Amino acid sequence: MKGDTRYMMRAVALARKGLGRTAPNPPVGAVVVRDSHIIGEGFHPRAGEPHAEVFALRQAGAAAWGATLYVTLEPCSHFGRTPPCVDAILEAGIARVVVGVVDPNPVVAGRGIRTLREQGVKVEVGAARKQTAELTAWYAFWMRHKRPYLIVKAAMTLDGRIAAPSGDSKWISSEESRAYVHELRDRADGVLVGIGTVEKDDPLLTCRRPGGRDPYRIVIDPAYVIPPAARCLGERAVIFTAGEPQSRPEVLKTGSRVVRLPADESGRFSWIDVLSELGSMGLHAVVAEGGSSILSSLIRSRMVDELLVFVAPKLLGGGVPLVAWDPPDTVAGAVPLVVTGARIIGGDVLVSARLED
Amino acid sequence: MKGDTRYMMRAVALARKGLGRTAPNPPVGAVVVRDSHIIGEGFHPRAGEPHAEVFALRQAGAAAWGATLYVTLEPCSHFGRTPPCVDAILEAGIARVVVGVVDPNPVVAGRGIRTLREQGVKVEVGAARKQTAELTAWYAFWMRHKRPYLIVKAAMTLDGRIAAPSGDSKWISSEESRAYVHELRDRADGVLVGIGTVEKDDPLLTCRRPGGRDPYRIVIDPAYVIPPAARCLGERAVIFTAGEPQSRPEVLKTGSRVVRLPADESGRFSWIDVLSELGSMGLHAVVAEGGSSILSSLIRSRMVDELLVFVAPKLLGGGVPLVAWDPPDTVAGAVPLVVTGARIIGGDVLVSARLED
Repeated sequence: MKGDTRYMMRAVALARKGLGRTAPNPPVGAVVVRDSHIIGEGFHPRAGEPHAEVFALRQAGAAAWGATLYVTLEPCSHFGRTPPCVDAILEAGIARVVVGVVDPNPVVAGRGIRTLREQGVKVEVGAARKQTAELTAWYAFWMRHKRPYLIVKAAMTLDGRIAAPSGDSKWISSEESRAYVHELRDRADGVLVGIGTVEKDDPLLTCRRPGGRDPYRIVIDPAYVIPPAARCLGERAVIFTAGEPQSRPEVLKTGSRVVRLPADESGRFSWIDVLSELGSMGLHAVVAEGGSSILSSLIRSRMVDELLVFVAPKLLGGGVPLVAWDPPDTVAGAVPLVVTGARIIGGDVLVSARLED
Repeated sequence: MKGDTRYMMRAVALARKGLGRTAPNPPVGAVVVRDSHIIGEGFHPRAGEPHAEVFALRQAGAAAWGATLYVTLEPCSHFGRTPPCVDAILEAGIARVVVGVVDPNPVVAGRGIRTLREQGVKVEVGAARKQTAELTAWYAFWMRHKRPYLIVKAAMTLDGRIAAPSGDSKWISSEESRAYVHELRDRADGVLVGIGTVEKDDPLLTCRRPGGRDPYRIVIDPAYVIPPAARCLGERAVIFTAGEPQSRPEVLKTGSRVVRLPADESGRFSWIDVLSELGSMGLHAVVAEGGSSILSSLIRSRMVDELLVFVAPKLLGGGVPLVAWDPPDTVAGAVPLVVTGARIIGGDVLVSARLED
């Protein structure tokens, strides 16, 4: 089993190359091993392209006959955009398959493994379970909840301010912290902000990491007032509005997708509507980056799966608070969280937390 | 030198028993070693009692002749409340003395070491330097600056609130964090709060740690309005006021010391006056525990040597901010800090920081 773990870790490393690029598919890596030698490697680069197993089997060629295949996720047994991997595995004459985790997709869900076994292939499940499960965590969440995993990201001073009274927030956190955010944008499928942030900062919301992949840029704009020159508009931009999309052709002309949703009397959407729509678009994970009212609203609606707060070594003495709502009279009425981590990054303290169950 | 470090670490462990109990003297530990056996141990328990060396030499008795003495701080060469330790060392016939750090007290400052060498004793300095220096850090600071080392301690929610709008703050931080604060009160010589905190919470400001030592309880009360029934009044309480101490005999009757200081037109003291007075009382370290206006004022005056902020996993959405002043227009105008540590303690994140130089 030691060897199995080692080969599976190689498959995990391969799968990571596809992180953030495969939605609505999960990232997957595969390795073909014969006589303790890796004879084929592959990963799923993006939806529509072949799966990891196919690349690995192709590279192995005829030598795959009787070899072992390591794959981070259960091979598919159904026709999607590509033919089922199980068929390719059987055709290649693979004798043994080691799987990281079972596919949470109900269309697969053990059927791939069962089919292989019925055809006389030896199948083992659970190698490098922690790493393979982590790889598919956002995909599994999306599959289970039909909505993306939602990360709230914020940078604040040690006294809890995300901007000076003027709205200036350049820069609260360190260069290293900001680079970390771009890594997150590279992996997550979407970045979400409120219209206030667009009006104030006119952010690009791209991934400025070399070789990075730009996420979907999602703007919450109930009143449909986004300036058509906003830098975040364009392909892969999604604007949620209560207005009539066609009423502003200058926005549609940018290539942005404008989605109409019902708003309540105070002009607010139900977050479940927003997230369901993003889920149906195949987004596995979305990072909400602000501002204060979006973060407050998400937290109050409990639609937050993870909080990442960069606490910068600065004191402002006033300004825009991280969150704001009608506060409870006593501390007992605060929204309880659970800290899941704390580490220093570029001189800031990165606190990760989740809502208490 | 391996052996020397080991014996010195034992002396450090002994010295720690006196931590927070020796002011205005430093905590010191000593060990007498002969033929690789510890034959005497001692530490300085409190001012007025014998020094560490004396206890260790007493325990060693006649066997000290020709032995090695390990002492965390340079032995004194002057008459204080007790006779000089150098004389006791010479009388005992110690052949070799290993010293952790040189005494920063200008009355000693190398003179103890020089006298021993002149009398033919072999002296080495620098064993377990990091640990012995840490042991005397607050003492050295006080000796150098003539004022106590000032630690600001606060507990806040992740959105930077130290209390709900009602003033309720029970409890922001976890039980473990509060226990840590009592450890700090046990070691530091004083706890400082503003009159607002006394009026709101009526705190005891004692050390609730089993076997703990109560710190001096220091209240900043320019208007001299402290209720005579305040629970923090009594022996080892110090009230700083701009009023006439004798004008309220009911306060003096509690045994508290009332110190009159000049206040500016807005009724505020100069922190340097307060800290100089505490320095002259022999306090090496003081913990300022609130409230918001005291912490803000200390930070603005740059009279803070260390910040300890317990960040609790809670969101209040409003309430009393950690600090408050007329904020700058831009982030560039924030008070810059340097994070020196971050760790999870009882579910809270303890961030330690200092002002940027």
